[in-house]
Amino acid sequence: MVKVDLNCDLGESFGNYKCGLDEEVIKYISSANIACGFHASDPLVMAKTVAMAKEYGVSAGAHPGYPDLVGFGRRNMNIAPKEVKAMVQYQVGALMAFCKANGIKMQHVKPHGAMYNMAGKDEALAAAICEGIYEVDPELILLGLSGSQMLIAAKKTGLKSAKEVFADRAYEEDGSLVARTKEGAVITDEETAINRVISMVKHGKVTAITGKEIAVEADSICVHGDGVKAVEFVKKISERLKEEGVAVLPINEVISR
Amino acid sequence: MVKVDLNCDLGESFGNYKCGLDEEVIKYISSANIACGFHASDPLVMAKTVAMAKEYGVSAGAHPGYPDLVGFGRRNMNIAPKEVKAMVQYQVGALMAFCKANGIKMQHVKPHGAMYNMAGKDEALAAAICEGIYEVDPELILLGLSGSQMLIAAKKTGLKSAKEVFADRAYEEDGSLVARTKEGAVITDEETAINRVISMVKHGKVTAITGKEIAVEADSICVHGDGVKAVEFVKKISERLKEEGVAVLPINEVISR
Amino acid sequence: MVKVDLNCDLGESFGNYKCGLDEEVIKYISSANIACGFHASDPLVMAKTVAMAKEYGVSAGAHPGYPDLVGFGRRNMNIAPKEVKAMVQYQVGALMAFCKANGIKMQHVKPHGAMYNMAGKDEALAAAICEGIYEVDPELILLGLSGSQMLIAAKKTGLKSAKEVFADRAYEEDGSLVARTKEGAVITDEETAINRVISMVKHGKVTAITGKEIAVEADSICVHGDGVKAVEFVKKISERLKEEGVAVLPINEVISR
Amino acid sequence: MVKVDLNCDLGESFGNYKCGLDEEVIKYISSANIACGFHASDPLVMAKTVAMAKEYGVSAGAHPGYPDLVGFGRRNMNIAPKEVKAMVQYQVGALMAFCKANGIKMQHVKPHGAMYNMAGKDEALAAAICEGIYEVDPELILLGLSGSQMLIAAKKTGLKSAKEVFADRAYEEDGSLVARTKEGAVITDEETAINRVISMVKHGKVTAITGKEIAVEADSICVHGDGVKAVEFVKKISERLKEEGVAVLPINEVISR
Repeated sequence: MVKVDLNCDLGESFGNYKCGLDEEVIKYISSANIACGFHASDPLVMAKTVAMAKEYGVSAGAHPGYPDLVGFGRRNMNIAPKEVKAMVQYQVGALMAFCKANGIKMQHVKPHGAMYNMAGKDEALAAAICEGIYEVDPELILLGLSGSQMLIAAKKTGLKSAKEVFADRAYEEDGSLVARTKEGAVITDEETAINRVISMVKHGKVTAITGKEIAVEADSICVHGDGVKAVEFVKKISERLKEEGVAVLPINEVISR
Repeated sequence: MVKVDLNCDLGESFGNYKCGLDEEVIKYISSANIACGFHASDPLVMAKTVAMAKEYGVSAGAHPGYPDLVGFGRRNMNIAPKEVKAMVQYQVGALMAFCKANGIKMQHVKPHGAMYNMAGKDEALAAAICEGIYEVDPELILLGLSGSQMLIAAKKTGLKSAKEVFADRAYEEDGSLVARTKEGAVITDEETAINRVISMVKHGKVTAITGKEIAVEADSICVHGDGVKAVEFVKKISERLKEEGVAVLPINEVISR
Repeated sequence: MVKVDLNCDLGESFGNYKCGLDEEVIKYISSANIACGFHASDPLVMAKTVAMAKEYGVSAGAHPGYPDLVGFGRRNMNIAPKEVKAMVQYQVGALMAFCKANGIKMQHVKPHGAMYNMAGKDEALAAAICEGIYEVDPELILLGLSGSQMLIAAKKTGLKSAKEVFADRAYEEDGSLVARTKEGAVITDEETAINRVISMVKHGKVTAITGKEIAVEADSICVHGDGVKAVEFVKKISERLKEEGVAVLPINEVISR
Repeated sequence: MVKVDLNCDLGESFGNYKCGLDEEVIKYISSANIACGFHASDPLVMAKTVAMAKEYGVSAGAHPGYPDLVGFGRRNMNIAPKEVKAMVQYQVGALMAFCKANGIKMQHVKPHGAMYNMAGKDEALAAAICEGIYEVDPELILLGLSGSQMLIAAKKTGLKSAKEVFADRAYEEDGSLVARTKEGAVITDEETAINRVISMVKHGKVTAITGKEIAVEADSICVHGDGVKAVEFVKKISERLKEEGVAVLPINEVISR
């Protein structure tokens, strides 16, 4: 049976600031990337989010980011790989504490925002992150952009990994994401987006922005819970996957195929 | 054989700011309380400090504090016990990641500054902290002020604990520390301080500020590494303990007697 | 003609986090207390909020708070008056820069949350804050709780001040606010609340929680913009004041009567 | 008479962390660049540093940086010019408050670390910073690297500016600093460094790393106070300048020639 994971960033509220419809979107996903206090979240939000993941039977992972709360971890920062490694270990450990307190096993790690983007293209940074994760717990799974340096580094490190694709983003012929600054970078038509997801998951193929069909591996689909419309879209993807006979399962069950 | 632990706060540097003679004082202590990034330290400093503790065979513990870097965690903050619990779990987990990455077992947790002082007198806060630690890892040892609410809470929670005494502080008749604002609160004469340490460790007795001899239990002595003089003092305590036939050992070996 | 100011906290968003219906509530108020980056806000939010205040002809003031973003400045912190003074000067200066850049004169300062509450009862803290403001600009107006230590300190310092009352809060016989933990502390019936406002503004009287009528001076009414219902309430207060022949004007025009 | 300013970064301590021999180096300089709480410093340190500058008759300027305390503002961050502008205005205003409280006029603004370096080469960033400063106070002087985009932007904006040179750094033929990663980037021989300073100040010439003599304009020399040796070096530069008949004066007196 074809299997795929649906992953979503959760727990991005901070103190008095609420963000994301976590309690709605969690019903449709199989893995949660939980913010760890550097780009978003705080200890209390993390405690609540891990407890909620447990309640809904959703697998929990760490979503470490750059120490840039005001920029939501989305701004490139020129930080030495050695220091990024320590930042990742710190955040992974912090989330792991809440998993232990809730009696669940932490499943994966997905770097956030600028760290995800920079490490996707930078071999040294990707290696530092993967080594950092592996040293803390060699059973953790790295969730990274399909075809990126992150996945290459994970393989070299001996770290398990899962390939992530995006429902709402266009791809270049080489499998990289079309830069958001380019026209057509974001797929706005829901039906088109869902058809692309089905194609990627069932057939390992997607049409690049040039019109050429390219191969793409999809262990997990990245979805969003930051608005009513986003949650509706996740629900539709989830339903369509079931109709197509695709099982939505946590990353660890998908990559063990 | 009489045994006692010597504990010291380490890893309190932050980014460009250096603080403490960690590499000197570590030679004489048996347990290190390592700051976790809230009142001091950062991920890179934590990584280095845990590696140093391993190198010197010193047992590592977490030293969680209030989120008050500019106040060094020394200012009372009115935070709900539930949130303090989450903060402690977060910081304990963060340090644990570096212990795992270095292949060592984290030994203990000692709250810092205002958190230590407030929880020493506040039952609900002490309970929240002890439960937080126990949920993350029931093998961890709480290091708290001898006779304080922290130790009572640890017992109720089922958390292992160790009783801490201070070489350079005067005691009230009830075993509490004399407030720093009172005259005579700090013992400045080194010889007097060392004799008090020997008396507490070997005989379980110390002379209170009133002149009355009181009973006190000492599993661990708190020492400091924040200056050349402080380190010299730790060296003297260490030497004198050996002369008196007292073994200086990590907390876990002391409390297993 | 009877005059009163309507003040509201604005500019409490932070980075990616949105908070408050600033663009709605600003239509009905005369003075804006703008957060300064310690308990909420960031430089870009401050720049936008000051520009918006200018656009709507609303007088701008600084709303300094404790350095506790995760606690939204609502948690008591035990900070020395000298340091609170420096924090206030820092924040007042920061907001003043945006006022200068927009070619407007900063009107007032209203401490936020825990700082407001603590300084309302603590003479030394209140004095430090008032001196801090006066040293930066002796033309600034302190906006403080009617009858509090803040107003007494302002008088001693030579700082102009305005007396603030709350539409939705009950009063003790001594003019202090009924603690939120007590039953009846918050007035939930809108009509009752508005009638109390009219009584305070036009007649200088309000019924205390004990039933006794007490005297209260009202230069400014504190209102909220943190939800659709709150904004509706502000609109009603504004309309009713006009019907009652009360002019809604900025603090500086109210206290010059 | 030939005139030049000696500028030094001051007030970079933070809370419990001490940094820099401010009280020593201030004796030899004419302008102080005072950190504003983003990359270093806190409100209390700023208050003390401005008071010290007044006491020693040294002109005070703001030294704004990126919001990166753990990286000391030395790491490149990809922040939109509009947001950097707001950050600069915020920090300039904050320092200005302490200048007002001390009854002195703030003289200049010198961006710090990564902001200084990035804006030196980025036209849009340089323009945003200069406009930000000019909007807050058109009398302020920008202190920037001689020959950089910052000085070009200041001119376009109508902002006064002063050209800074470095005693201990090598120059490329185009007048830019040799990158620290290249051999020979730092001049380690004190006598050589001082002779270069004299040549730049008196004759407007310096030998580039290629051996070619190039023209350079020097309104101000950047010196350091971060160690005993650094302070000794500043003292020597100061003495030598006097021997050579060069007057050491604050920036505003130098550029009014």
